[in-house]
Amino acid sequence: MFERIDHVGIVVAEIDSALSVYSESFGMELVHREVLDELGLEVALLEIGESHIELLAPLSPDSVIGDAGPGMHHVAYGVGDLDASLALLRERGVELVDGFPKAGVRSSRIAFVHPHAAGGVLTELVQAAPA
Amino acid sequence: MFERIDHVGIVVAEIDSALSVYSESFGMELVHREVLDELGLEVALLEIGESHIELLAPLSPDSVIGDAGPGMHHVAYGVGDLDASLALLRERGVELVDGFPKAGVRSSRIAFVHPHAAGGVLTELVQAAPA
Repeated sequence: MFERIDHVGIVVAEIDSALSVYSESFGMELVHREVLDELGLEVALLEIGESHIELLAPLSPDSVIGDAGPGMHHVAYGVGDLDASLALLRERGVELVDGFPKAGVRSSRIAFVHPHAAGGVLTELVQAAPA
Repeated sequence: MFERIDHVGIVVAEIDSALSVYSESFGMELVHREVLDELGLEVALLEIGESHIELLAPLSPDSVIGDAGPGMHHVAYGVGDLDASLALLRERGVELVDGFPKAGVRSSRIAFVHPHAAGGVLTELVQAAPA
């Protein structure tokens, strides 16, 4: 069902200084950067193998990431068919935050599993946009 | 330098109930399980694409993971040549916890980067044992 780690979400105080670490020191390629005004955050995606590191910086005190971090925030898994995955998880009794897919970065479709149902880890499922 | 996410380390209260989530509900294959007496913890590795989820359960109050978690604990990146990676990071001024490689699970060689040097995330480098 889960095909790969799509990304690890990391909350940072500010994107540029975090990029100097992940891009310059660690050598990961910055592949996407976006300000999500309605969520009150800035996002940067860095490529690492078949996965990404997703840096998240709050832009206002009422950001959706609230007072989280800095540090690891969530793990996201790539799935081929998000609707089928959510149906299967529901059938297996896994508590979901989102019963239905919502819009993610880069036109992906996403949904969150409740941390209580995933060993204390906020867990996201991501279906990439068609290429 | 970093080739892929080798694993995400997650601290859980107890391995078996966490396995029921990651193996049975999420469908990841359990590929390794080991008790590390000298570190005071039990470890389970589950396969996900080119990466693993590493479940860590403390076995005693003086476990190396101390009073961490439950939840996300560290991110590990796979490298081809750990000595060369450590030398390059040192050259780039990245603060290391381990100046020299030490032994990891499944005969790997590992070293940790200081969280202060990685956006608040405890960061591990892993060179797999020769196949």
